[in-house]
Amino acid sequence: MGLDYRVKCCPDGLVTDRRRRIKVLDCTIRDGGLCNEWRFEPALVRSVFEALRESGIEYMEVGYRVSQNGKETHENTGPWRFCEENDLQRVVEPGRMKLSTMVDVGRVTPDDIPHTRDTAISVLRIATYAHQMDEALRLLDHGLACGYETFLNVMAISTLSPDEVDKALLRMRGSGVHNVAIVDSFGALFPSHVRYLVHKYMNYLGDGIKVGVHFHNNQQQAFANTLTAIDEGVDFVDATVYGMGRGAGNCPLELLLLYLDNPRYNVGPIFDLMGDFANLHDELRWGYQLPYAVTGYFNLHPREGIERMTQPDRYQVRDMFERYRARFGATPPGR
Amino acid sequence: MGLDYRVKCCPDGLVTDRRRRIKVLDCTIRDGGLCNEWRFEPALVRSVFEALRESGIEYMEVGYRVSQNGKETHENTGPWRFCEENDLQRVVEPGRMKLSTMVDVGRVTPDDIPHTRDTAISVLRIATYAHQMDEALRLLDHGLACGYETFLNVMAISTLSPDEVDKALLRMRGSGVHNVAIVDSFGALFPSHVRYLVHKYMNYLGDGIKVGVHFHNNQQQAFANTLTAIDEGVDFVDATVYGMGRGAGNCPLELLLLYLDNPRYNVGPIFDLMGDFANLHDELRWGYQLPYAVTGYFNLHPREGIERMTQPDRYQVRDMFERYRARFGATPPGR
Repeated sequence: MGLDYRVKCCPDGLVTDRRRRIKVLDCTIRDGGLCNEWRFEPALVRSVFEALRESGIEYMEVGYRVSQNGKETHENTGPWRFCEENDLQRVVEPGRMKLSTMVDVGRVTPDDIPHTRDTAISVLRIATYAHQMDEALRLLDHGLACGYETFLNVMAISTLSPDEVDKALLRMRGSGVHNVAIVDSFGALFPSHVRYLVHKYMNYLGDGIKVGVHFHNNQQQAFANTLTAIDEGVDFVDATVYGMGRGAGNCPLELLLLYLDNPRYNVGPIFDLMGDFANLHDELRWGYQLPYAVTGYFNLHPREGIERMTQPDRYQVRDMFERYRARFGATPPGR
Repeated sequence: MGLDYRVKCCPDGLVTDRRRRIKVLDCTIRDGGLCNEWRFEPALVRSVFEALRESGIEYMEVGYRVSQNGKETHENTGPWRFCEENDLQRVVEPGRMKLSTMVDVGRVTPDDIPHTRDTAISVLRIATYAHQMDEALRLLDHGLACGYETFLNVMAISTLSPDEVDKALLRMRGSGVHNVAIVDSFGALFPSHVRYLVHKYMNYLGDGIKVGVHFHNNQQQAFANTLTAIDEGVDFVDATVYGMGRGAGNCPLELLLLYLDNPRYNVGPIFDLMGDFANLHDELRWGYQLPYAVTGYFNLHPREGIERMTQPDRYQVRDMFERYRARFGATPPGR
């Protein structure tokens, strides 16, 4: 029995070798853009691209692609909400690291998604709610026909019934999709839930579809839930630099790479980004805060937590907690 | 099969019923005092006492008891470093919630520890390194003779060899101690390590000694590791209001109480403390930061991380990481 070469009191192998199968998708610009309406300077996006490439990360999600339908325009929203080719050309280069954009069902049409021969993007991530699955599968068919590696992310999974989860998984099973992420939009899940869901997703989706995770940090579980998913055998995980993301943020890429401890990755270039992201954080203040814990605990969209964080009494959440408890039920006796 | 009444997609019972056996020890003033040299206003300590009592917490650790040997004095250190009776009388009352102080082996003599009939304190927590076990057991004998409920906390367990852990546990097994905490002083442990250590502690200490945990948040694992320990069957867990504690801080009491979801506890009064602790946090800035992750990853005392956090380039830790890696070894090939 060898010893863990850092945690000396423990035998080697407690941290599972399932780490080695993991691929990492960085969605800093896409999910972090929810904090600043995708107004990242091109130079910063370029430096993120270069650092990720040098670190050996497999996927970089550069932003969203949405229809320019008059509501969201270049005047009121940053360029990484649209990921147009002329903007992409300034910040990325073709290479081994795959580049993805996310599309939200209902905010994009097939006409907005070019053939892969006409774009720097080779990976399409479709974000959908379970009730939009028809439209999601139409976008998927278009994406597959255009040559994309595809993801289907069913959002807010914690709000569905088990039966609704089963149905969504069965529809994806036969769809031709390549990757499916378990998405904890509300930061409501704990590791025990993650174990259950990873097993269900892998079992229902079958061998041909890779399973991954995308977690939020409302209850300080984003990284811990990611570790659980890795232990249970998922294929890929999402992370962001400095955990940047809406509200409580995401699994921090730098912590994840340290944990994965795989010579394939080099965390150094990610550390070099920290000065810039610390400055962004001073301005935008994503990350764990108590109001997000309360929305996460009650399995709610974080919007009231985000609103509360703009108020002077932002940390005094007892009223919020009591109001939710009255609405969603007290702790049942005997639990 | 019932459904989790918040996380709707999961069956009930995934979050284990082992939660119900848990007792909670709040060490906000003791461990948090490492951030401000125990200079809490008596009114704040009083309000913490009242909130904890109203919340149903079983133990409050009010501070340390150390010898006044000329180095640490009332002139240069706050009152909760000494926990003298006249100070205690201003902030606590006898009642159902047990009050504890911590003593560090080497910083206290039996003469500094009064008989329980002469103090508001009924619980003595002895913090020791493994090599100080002789002295720790002498203090323990004194504490038992004085009528205290006793804890022995072997610090920095992650730096010991398995054999050294075994020896420390065997010495404690026959000592008469009531409670033993697994202490991750450096924030180096992940849930897999915690599972292993909980089983070892419970097995080696035997039936008569309760086992608990005290975790730090260097790698965002304090709360996650606590949940793991609960799942594995420990008897008590340490937490602090707002996660207050040196460096990366501790398991946040408010998150823990939400998770425990036990009608025995009421998180409301803890929420009412958040305004005061948010102000303290603005000043003292405990909590997860990247330099603490690097010391935690390398299983080192956080002191260089704490020092780095006072520097303008605090988030640019690549040099620190590369220096440690050169000193402690690169990732072995094939891991």
